[in-house]
Amino acid sequence: MTVNIALLGFGTVASGVPFLLQENSTKITAQAGTDIQIAKVLVRDVAEKDVLRAQGHAYDFVTDISAILNDDAIDIVIELMGRIEPAKTFITQALQAKKHVVTANKDLLAMHGADLLKVAKDNGVALYYEAAVAGGIPILRTLAHSYTADKITKILGVVNGTSNFMMTKMVDEGWTYDEALAEASRLGYAESDPTNDVDGIDAAYKMVILSQFAFGMTIKFDDVRHEGIRHITPEDVKLAQKLGFVIKLVGEIVERPSGIYAEVVPTFLPKDHQLATVNGVMNAVFVESIGINEAMFYGPGAGQKPTATSVVADVIELAKGIQKGAVLPAFNTFARETVYATKEDLVDKYYFAIETDDKAGQLLHLAELFHAENVSFEQVFQENLGDNRASIAIIAHKMDLNQFDSLVEKISALDGFTLRNTIKVI
Amino acid sequence: MTVNIALLGFGTVASGVPFLLQENSTKITAQAGTDIQIAKVLVRDVAEKDVLRAQGHAYDFVTDISAILNDDAIDIVIELMGRIEPAKTFITQALQAKKHVVTANKDLLAMHGADLLKVAKDNGVALYYEAAVAGGIPILRTLAHSYTADKITKILGVVNGTSNFMMTKMVDEGWTYDEALAEASRLGYAESDPTNDVDGIDAAYKMVILSQFAFGMTIKFDDVRHEGIRHITPEDVKLAQKLGFVIKLVGEIVERPSGIYAEVVPTFLPKDHQLATVNGVMNAVFVESIGINEAMFYGPGAGQKPTATSVVADVIELAKGIQKGAVLPAFNTFARETVYATKEDLVDKYYFAIETDDKAGQLLHLAELFHAENVSFEQVFQENLGDNRASIAIIAHKMDLNQFDSLVEKISALDGFTLRNTIKVI
Repeated sequence: MTVNIALLGFGTVASGVPFLLQENSTKITAQAGTDIQIAKVLVRDVAEKDVLRAQGHAYDFVTDISAILNDDAIDIVIELMGRIEPAKTFITQALQAKKHVVTANKDLLAMHGADLLKVAKDNGVALYYEAAVAGGIPILRTLAHSYTADKITKILGVVNGTSNFMMTKMVDEGWTYDEALAEASRLGYAESDPTNDVDGIDAAYKMVILSQFAFGMTIKFDDVRHEGIRHITPEDVKLAQKLGFVIKLVGEIVERPSGIYAEVVPTFLPKDHQLATVNGVMNAVFVESIGINEAMFYGPGAGQKPTATSVVADVIELAKGIQKGAVLPAFNTFARETVYATKEDLVDKYYFAIETDDKAGQLLHLAELFHAENVSFEQVFQENLGDNRASIAIIAHKMDLNQFDSLVEKISALDGFTLRNTIKVI
Repeated sequence: MTVNIALLGFGTVASGVPFLLQENSTKITAQAGTDIQIAKVLVRDVAEKDVLRAQGHAYDFVTDISAILNDDAIDIVIELMGRIEPAKTFITQALQAKKHVVTANKDLLAMHGADLLKVAKDNGVALYYEAAVAGGIPILRTLAHSYTADKITKILGVVNGTSNFMMTKMVDEGWTYDEALAEASRLGYAESDPTNDVDGIDAAYKMVILSQFAFGMTIKFDDVRHEGIRHITPEDVKLAQKLGFVIKLVGEIVERPSGIYAEVVPTFLPKDHQLATVNGVMNAVFVESIGINEAMFYGPGAGQKPTATSVVADVIELAKGIQKGAVLPAFNTFARETVYATKEDLVDKYYFAIETDDKAGQLLHLAELFHAENVSFEQVFQENLGDNRASIAIIAHKMDLNQFDSLVEKISALDGFTLRNTIKVI
């Protein structure tokens, strides 16, 4: 038999799919137990079709999704267009047409995953998306099949390659945020609007998906606190280094007695933490659990071949099941009622970077303010910035999220003080 | 329904199984789709049974394997006794009695895995062993299910916790081999006869198993070149550090155009290599491939709970399949004819540590010898050791394995020279 697939979109990642199917054809056929053929490829318009034909691509290009939906020979639809629409409509229609779907679309899955999975279930088909989190790292299938006996207590992830590339340059080379962004743009790592990457939005999408696989709960995107790397200065980086830390943008999901919580925030990582050496565009997911204790999964977060490898691995798992004729298992079967942690249950150390006038009594002011919140200083660094300005960096002892929010609010409101940045300390 | 399991042995790891079944019972039952019960536990003799009963363990302890083999209610047998016999006989009998088997026994699998897998196949049952390589790291299932679309070109593994603990102490603290071994013994990491760990035998077993999952080929244990860490001195460690390397005992499997090759040898790893920060008893497997490119899987290599977690994950996968009533998939389905690489096809850089009399012309002697093998020096370090003795450390440019073997033989035979150590340079 042959399993027929249709590709929606033929961009960079999509063109990696035929590369793998050809390059590894013997292994893939043996593993899948069947041939896998690209039956149709959806492109935008006739012009794109003509360009791809001229480049030598001999697929059956179509410009109307119904040519795929109505083709009974097609078993699996691979969506690699990205963004919400028309991907959402096309995936929904493909599932309704009883076709299995593979996608790498994290934005879509984070915002509408639950709806799409319901459509899949209602139609007796499967929706797989290993490539949606940390592209080339096989993390979702591993959580779904190898952590079944374990109870995960914390996930820490460096899951945005663009911001991690920038942070690596800022740490290793002492570059400013703007210098790092310029280089990321030049190398094609940053989009013309880098907001999703540098503000932690992309990483927050991934936390939503990881929360489902690791904790069986669905944290809503709007409930993932996210803060980016725009405010990190060379001074923050230098101080971190002096104290034995590396700054990275880290996504965290934690389960506390009261429930779970997720955030993406700049973080001081101890230099000997396994995540601290995840550099450049590489990604890693660090998993803490009661059984395995500590494990890390490291690899490329994006890129044509890594992402296509995860996509084709999904296709092979589906192809194996299609031959058996049974209903295919859902990609993730771990589901519990979602319960959010209380702020009192979320306790961390923080670094506060503050600027103020260089005059007597300023530090006392801050000390009184922290004392009023019942938070004490672990370390304080004061530096004259010239022009009668001073920088005060405080690493405070553990506080809960209420105390942290209250401190941020009060320092921000304090006359003559500027709260330049806050960074979580692990 | 209930899936019934029998434990062969009730040592440290085995007692982690009931811990997980109880601690994570809700999740495990949901993931498996069934209750999992420990029906019987095989112990050595009545005395052990009495001790365990006195400790409060209320299992149905049996001292005769036939009580398990003849119990039709038992679906899965978990072997955690270790060593070759009687484990091999018991596993064979369990498979013949149509029971699925889960084991963590790497020695047995490396030496007799092919035979046991044939018995499993012939009897329509499955043999799973995620815990056999790098205990808590879910590496085998990941290779079997997430690398299906990829072609692996190289595996590098730090897969022996004892020797890695020792090397970490030798690198970080400057300890000698003997000091590191004494500490490993004191902490219970090293057995009274540490041979398997420090001579690379244990890691070589794991390379045999990894070769099957990563390359679909079975390298015989006797064909895994293995050399241990006994000859590594603080001088080697210091020189490595000076040159930007960390020394570790690394297992490598590589596929070259002529075939595959595996070895376990002390290795200079560049400090920024992801494996270089895998310290203490932790393990990691670094995978190079044409699709994902570079990925690493890091976690505990041993220990009660990590190993039990992998064992129970295997049990859950089996339990899922048992309910469906179909023949369970083999743990690994990737198989090709095993073809070994030629020595000409295996090219690496090497470090040679040589001692000789401190007199004129000695380095010239060595230079002539290397020149005759068509191998040139990359770096040379000569040091006076006192007593008219000198140490010569050479990092040589890339050579194939024939050249390396020939150099080792010739230097060893050279009058007045002692080849103290050789270390591969990555």
